[in-house]
Amino acid sequence: MSQAASFQPIGVVRSALDDLDAAPSQGPEAGTTAVIELDPALAEGLQGLTPGRWLWVLCHFDRAKQVKLKVHPRGDRSRPQTGLFSTRSPHRVNPISLTLVRLEALEGNRLTVRGLEMVDGTPVLDLKPWVAGIDQPRGEQE
Amino acid sequence: MSQAASFQPIGVVRSALDDLDAAPSQGPEAGTTAVIELDPALAEGLQGLTPGRWLWVLCHFDRAKQVKLKVHPRGDRSRPQTGLFSTRSPHRVNPISLTLVRLEALEGNRLTVRGLEMVDGTPVLDLKPWVAGIDQPRGEQE
Repeated sequence: MSQAASFQPIGVVRSALDDLDAAPSQGPEAGTTAVIELDPALAEGLQGLTPGRWLWVLCHFDRAKQVKLKVHPRGDRSRPQTGLFSTRSPHRVNPISLTLVRLEALEGNRLTVRGLEMVDGTPVLDLKPWVAGIDQPRGEQE
Repeated sequence: MSQAASFQPIGVVRSALDDLDAAPSQGPEAGTTAVIELDPALAEGLQGLTPGRWLWVLCHFDRAKQVKLKVHPRGDRSRPQTGLFSTRSPHRVNPISLTLVRLEALEGNRLTVRGLEMVDGTPVLDLKPWVAGIDQPRGEQE
């Protein structure tokens, strides 16, 4: 395999969640807001983003637990185990989270977003705009 | 900011593209197939994936060029510059790509996927299933 990839966080999540076990599983119920504090040196890169846009937030889920290649979906032990890569379990070989959020406000280097249920202090690796077409299944699903 | 995050690739892209400049920009026109060769030690984690599923592929875009915080969207110099984080430019602070692909076939540790226009040898960092609801804008857009 190729050599390791090393990334420097571009920012950090500020949220009311300080306990991993209090963080809900990813899902549409995730309705509270959090703040992403971007490295001020990168704030120029936010130009063009406006409230109402949908963004992908990639975080380093740095409190991920031991990786298992077979998991119970959503941690529900009543459901049969399946392969890690067919689930969104946060406990991944490479614990990079992917969350779609709505940008509610943008002030300088601070983005207020809805739908990001991350523990306070979680490092942010990237922000990308959601783009119709390329981010939607094409063909049989829409 | 937090400390660096280091990831070990879980696999590699095998494709007919050996030249960065020949790789098309991300988009619905990306219709050719590529193969993801997963580390055989991780193949168990693919259980539950079946052809026809849509997957997110996260790659380390290891041939990314110099990062600029302002870019021309899709490299089109006739379009005004905008902030990096409002675009899907591959030349990012942390060059992690995000591509939605359709799983066409799965044999052992080899996934044949449609829509992944990556140069041969690109390291793969993660695979995640596309999940209705959480991966779609909620409310005014659908």
